[in-house]
Amino acid sequence: MRASTYPLVDAEEAAALVLERTHVLPPERVALGEAAGRVLAQDMRAPSALPAFPSSAVDGFAARAADAGRSLRIVGESAAGRPFAGRLELGTAARILTGGAVPEGADTVVMVEDVSVAGEVVTVPSNLQPGTNFHRPGADVRAGELVLSAGIQLGAAELGLAAALGFANVEVYMRPRVVLMSTGDELVEVGKESGPGQIVDSNRWALLAALREAGADVSSLGIAPDEREALRTMVVGALEAADVLVTSGGVSVGTHDLVKPLLESLGNVHVGRVKLKPGKPFTFATLPHGKLAFGLPGFPVSSLVTFEVFVRPALRKLQGFSKLQRPTLPVRLGYDARATADRTEYQRVTLVREGSELVGRTTGSQSSSRLLSLVGAQALVRIAPGDVGVKAGTVVEAMILSLP
Amino acid sequence: MRASTYPLVDAEEAAALVLERTHVLPPERVALGEAAGRVLAQDMRAPSALPAFPSSAVDGFAARAADAGRSLRIVGESAAGRPFAGRLELGTAARILTGGAVPEGADTVVMVEDVSVAGEVVTVPSNLQPGTNFHRPGADVRAGELVLSAGIQLGAAELGLAAALGFANVEVYMRPRVVLMSTGDELVEVGKESGPGQIVDSNRWALLAALREAGADVSSLGIAPDEREALRTMVVGALEAADVLVTSGGVSVGTHDLVKPLLESLGNVHVGRVKLKPGKPFTFATLPHGKLAFGLPGFPVSSLVTFEVFVRPALRKLQGFSKLQRPTLPVRLGYDARATADRTEYQRVTLVREGSELVGRTTGSQSSSRLLSLVGAQALVRIAPGDVGVKAGTVVEAMILSLP
Repeated sequence: MRASTYPLVDAEEAAALVLERTHVLPPERVALGEAAGRVLAQDMRAPSALPAFPSSAVDGFAARAADAGRSLRIVGESAAGRPFAGRLELGTAARILTGGAVPEGADTVVMVEDVSVAGEVVTVPSNLQPGTNFHRPGADVRAGELVLSAGIQLGAAELGLAAALGFANVEVYMRPRVVLMSTGDELVEVGKESGPGQIVDSNRWALLAALREAGADVSSLGIAPDEREALRTMVVGALEAADVLVTSGGVSVGTHDLVKPLLESLGNVHVGRVKLKPGKPFTFATLPHGKLAFGLPGFPVSSLVTFEVFVRPALRKLQGFSKLQRPTLPVRLGYDARATADRTEYQRVTLVREGSELVGRTTGSQSSSRLLSLVGAQALVRIAPGDVGVKAGTVVEAMILSLP
Repeated sequence: MRASTYPLVDAEEAAALVLERTHVLPPERVALGEAAGRVLAQDMRAPSALPAFPSSAVDGFAARAADAGRSLRIVGESAAGRPFAGRLELGTAARILTGGAVPEGADTVVMVEDVSVAGEVVTVPSNLQPGTNFHRPGADVRAGELVLSAGIQLGAAELGLAAALGFANVEVYMRPRVVLMSTGDELVEVGKESGPGQIVDSNRWALLAALREAGADVSSLGIAPDEREALRTMVVGALEAADVLVTSGGVSVGTHDLVKPLLESLGNVHVGRVKLKPGKPFTFATLPHGKLAFGLPGFPVSSLVTFEVFVRPALRKLQGFSKLQRPTLPVRLGYDARATADRTEYQRVTLVREGSELVGRTTGSQSSSRLLSLVGAQALVRIAPGDVGVKAGTVVEAMILSLP
């Protein structure tokens, strides 16, 4: 047992270093039904206009504005998908349904509520204007228009638009394939009896959820073997089909720690300790072929906070997001936040609205083992190192996890 | 063709009516790995304390505070999962690693950085305090404590906590099973050639993404047949294994509309038109066995806005969320918002931070067919019916879709 030989790196410096070493994954083509939440990898231009033809916005009659106030002979119907075949002449009208193509010759559509119909004759109002109640070709999207830019996340509207323009597949960045592993001789599987000094492997379940929420495709290796060669074989094998290794536990300075020596032998350890509370023993390494390894601390809160600060932005960069960080908003502190002398601290708060403001209330004891300090937490408040802290009532810019 | 006979219902009234008719689904038990994002269906109490035993927060030596300043004989080691078997007597110390159980007899832990070691003797500082550098049993969670309340959504921290307490499964509300169907003779599948007057079925892809984001388990029936009996057989069959039917298109007053008569024959249509822009032809029906049917308009923006206003809160109620609505925040309007005389309007805006404020900028033409008005939209601004509208510079409470 010895004190760690890794230098303590500033939290901000370590976060920048991680992103510097993280590169966007290649694109792939996926079907629309699999593309929700993915990031577009190339600009999308409209191959044709939307709408492609003049289409009625209402149910009513297609007519000519010049026929205003007259009684017109009904010569046919244009329903959605069943256009009127002929051309509309003066003195005639065609029934038209919402989405139906406005027939050639017609220049206006009259709502059914505004006409009177007797047999096959419709009388239209005297105030007809051309160009009314239908969508002009290209009114929504012009042919060739840039509609979606690379780097945006595909949601409902974006996928609807891609479909409307005829794209059955879209080019998106690949999702990071992450191998997740827990280390520590003290760990037992959830649902099994704990012996003396043992604890349940809980980080794996927390990190599984956090990784998936961040867009990763996760495979779990479970609890790592405590034998050097078995561990190495397992990790090397799993990395063949993965982009990122995430471990939790086993990165303190204990004699039983096998993770750091393994990462050192497989690649380069860039960060071995950070000036962060919670999360001091955070480890970051690069491995051959641009792969990344994150060694997260074993304490539950430390593992999730280092995930937020270091891993989540990297996962977002890998999958092409233009925005890597959580959004921030001004939050008025509802408590006195004490600083830690030599480490940046991320304190967990819940949010309440008071008037037009968001107020951050502490989630209680911020111990690195107390998961309850993250349960229901809606923001992370960064407290700079020092002896000053932040007084209650001060407005800080907080990382927003969810809104009240 | 006739004007609709359904009364125009206020948008707020219709939204309240939908929720009134929507009931929480039954609970089910799922494994931790499948529980992320789900809503807890019963309070969770800690069956035992956390930590269960006094566990070291650091690497160092377990000792007795009474031995402060002395050189102590190292009698063993307590590593995580491998506790020291004996009792620590005065004049002795045990190596201890982070997570290791503090041996019986010891009352303090000294960090490795603060001692000097010579062979099997360790000299500890003179300022030892009992109770230092270890986590006391029950310090994080007391046995019997209520740790998670029914109605909360399970995220990373909640699942980690459940695991730490030994729960391999959790009781959550079932996810709503939704059958999704597009109607309209004008529709063609994406990727197929469009004939005259035809358009791509884009709503299905948009709604598929929106439904999944809202937590639904969606099965898609594709484009509905335009023949009454075939449609009925298909819908009745699909509803056997579903809780909710969502259709888009075919709810205007056109003669070709088959959806409303079908819903009328299967159950009760409570809303057939709403004073909402976009989205006037929104339809809501209840079906036997507490099932729900939503007929969304065919115009792309109308279908997604009515989804947000009516369907998403109902899906959240079905799966047990205590909070049904999107969060809101004060947003300063960056444009003059015109009102519609007789309908509540939801205008789409992007958000930018200006100083401590969020400013909402219009996404351009708010036409019900223009999906670009929803692309990148970050908030919905509700404009009350009337002739006044909302002037640029006014602060409104906006529904937040995403933060800048």
